[in-house]
Amino acid sequence: MVSAKMYELGTKKSTIRTIFEFGRKRAAEVGEENIFDFSLGNPNVPTPDFVRDAAIEILKTYEPAQVHGYTVAPGNPNVRDTLAKSINARFGTNFAVKNIFITSGAAAAITICFKALAEPGDEFITFAPYFPEYKVFVESVGAELKVVKPRPEDWQIDFDDFKRLLSPKTKAVIINSPNNPSGAVYSAETIKQLTDILKDYGQEIFLICDEPYRELAYGVDVPWVTDYYENTLVCYSYSKSFSLPGERIGYIVVPDEVADFNKIFGAIAGAARVLTHVNAPSLWQLVVAKCAGKAVDITPYERNGKILYDGLIAAGFECVKPQGAFYLFPKALEADDYAFCERAKKYDLLLVPGADFGAPGYFRAAYCIKTETIERSLPLFKKLATEYLS
Amino acid sequence: MVSAKMYELGTKKSTIRTIFEFGRKRAAEVGEENIFDFSLGNPNVPTPDFVRDAAIEILKTYEPAQVHGYTVAPGNPNVRDTLAKSINARFGTNFAVKNIFITSGAAAAITICFKALAEPGDEFITFAPYFPEYKVFVESVGAELKVVKPRPEDWQIDFDDFKRLLSPKTKAVIINSPNNPSGAVYSAETIKQLTDILKDYGQEIFLICDEPYRELAYGVDVPWVTDYYENTLVCYSYSKSFSLPGERIGYIVVPDEVADFNKIFGAIAGAARVLTHVNAPSLWQLVVAKCAGKAVDITPYERNGKILYDGLIAAGFECVKPQGAFYLFPKALEADDYAFCERAKKYDLLLVPGADFGAPGYFRAAYCIKTETIERSLPLFKKLATEYLS
Repeated sequence: MVSAKMYELGTKKSTIRTIFEFGRKRAAEVGEENIFDFSLGNPNVPTPDFVRDAAIEILKTYEPAQVHGYTVAPGNPNVRDTLAKSINARFGTNFAVKNIFITSGAAAAITICFKALAEPGDEFITFAPYFPEYKVFVESVGAELKVVKPRPEDWQIDFDDFKRLLSPKTKAVIINSPNNPSGAVYSAETIKQLTDILKDYGQEIFLICDEPYRELAYGVDVPWVTDYYENTLVCYSYSKSFSLPGERIGYIVVPDEVADFNKIFGAIAGAARVLTHVNAPSLWQLVVAKCAGKAVDITPYERNGKILYDGLIAAGFECVKPQGAFYLFPKALEADDYAFCERAKKYDLLLVPGADFGAPGYFRAAYCIKTETIERSLPLFKKLATEYLS
Repeated sequence: MVSAKMYELGTKKSTIRTIFEFGRKRAAEVGEENIFDFSLGNPNVPTPDFVRDAAIEILKTYEPAQVHGYTVAPGNPNVRDTLAKSINARFGTNFAVKNIFITSGAAAAITICFKALAEPGDEFITFAPYFPEYKVFVESVGAELKVVKPRPEDWQIDFDDFKRLLSPKTKAVIINSPNNPSGAVYSAETIKQLTDILKDYGQEIFLICDEPYRELAYGVDVPWVTDYYENTLVCYSYSKSFSLPGERIGYIVVPDEVADFNKIFGAIAGAARVLTHVNAPSLWQLVVAKCAGKAVDITPYERNGKILYDGLIAAGFECVKPQGAFYLFPKALEADDYAFCERAKKYDLLLVPGADFGAPGYFRAAYCIKTETIERSLPLFKKLATEYLS
């Protein structure tokens, strides 16, 4: 009666969801304060006041039709102009209205790009560890996701494995830096090497940069990838930077230099049309334009990351230093990361197995939670480690 | 390099778009006040103050994370509870949280339903005249749209043609009442007869009710279809009732009585997942709950419809009386509705050919524009008619 595939996609519980529900159940039993839930990537720094103030001002002073009317599908041209100029001011680029397509967040942005590009038989390549929805989204547009094996020493790129996976079927490469789940930021050298390989490959390949965590980088630069490679599509979201994940607002940058700009922008519009995009929420288009370029305070995440990292290292864990996003991705203390995360539950430490992200043997700890909860969790991590290491 | 199909969908200009752009060009030449643009279904009654006030109050008084955080994919449970109760109070139904899936407007709601249901080889049936995106959305999920021929005397249903199109391949029937573009409201008799045919057909067929215009009915009842047929999915949007088309907020009602509720709700969740729905915009979820059941003033549309209808009849046009939505669908004064609409342009009357909606020989005039513009257009319609009728 219904699409078997959609039923499966809608009902197969993700590991993260299962862990989250376990946490809710345990919280009811032992109290919220005794649950150490590192499972969700939900920003806990409140939305900045300037965002709220901008929304209220727009609601109070603009004509309702200006705020709530349909916009053209790529978004309000004035907003796109402001966003383009803001990007230009920051990265020395030269984008204009026509280079910006406003979307309902980054999930929409990347899926629209996948759908715009994919033809039957196409392959997309990404790098473990990776956001598991990539596989769902890529397969939903009829293409196949190929995954480059992880490079655990620094979570940069294993270029030998990448070259092995490149093929005439490769339509696009997806990178996500700062990375969920590893917290790594791809260095300028990594981007240079990656894009050099793409240039040398002798075939048009798109580079899709999924950048919802761009603003969340701690003392390292996040290279602006259109500087390195012409055929780049940048997908951005305000979910994390402005703590607006529920409002669904982001954009795609389509540079003039991509192979056949008009074809690609047209295909993005067509993909958006059949992916239920009519326009990105119109109030939030105006709000993000009003707030373009305003700095956000990432010190709470940076502090959390440092406390958790130092605590884990002190407890005997191995972990790459946090560089961005709000995740640590330490090595599990046994080869089976599922078994390890199960054992952590004994202490009500809720962690996500790395296998879910294509990197077995590791685990993800999201530190976008209360600092005090992190501090109180450290003795428990210590106890957990002692089970293995003593 | 890109998906040829997506490029085509994103670049082939719709007739409405072409007319709209012509209007913008003419407005620059002869002045905005001399253009009589009946081409767009964009609500012109301002968003009610209670909607704006609710949004401001939420922004000012709620915790940001409560307002802007992710919700579960079907939407905030408290909001769904409120919406279910509001529907129950109005229609004597018995819906609960689990029967509501909040979407980014009606376009998302219907496309999610199509995708949730469609399997290869499936057919969906709708009734001319119909919203042309149905064809795009149905084909985008791999199914075929079959169109029942129009019944111009009252724009109700041609049941003989409907029975002819029903087949073992029929997965669902799509109705849109009040109707875009005809302005008709399906009577209780029409709904009864339609659902009796479906019940007698001896195979599970879904009835998808696309109801963005439900509140816009003038002195006639809009039957609540779940009272007539168990296998009904109701798709609603606040775009027209609250004049919020840019904000993208609506819902799907999935009654307990649909064939295999869990399968369908699960498939809807799966379809939403791959159609870029993460959750419907979270602020607007809260706003529509706060405003649930509040009456909207539809008298401006009703007045406009009456003035335009009376004027067209006086000029010699044939037209079914306006019952709902904000469209008239009169008979063109020559068999070729494209030629007729071209000739109307001479007077800067911008009308949409009926063939675009599967009903050649008619035209759509959207009366969600200034009353004064409609009044000033009447002598021009008279002149246009005189060309044909004198």
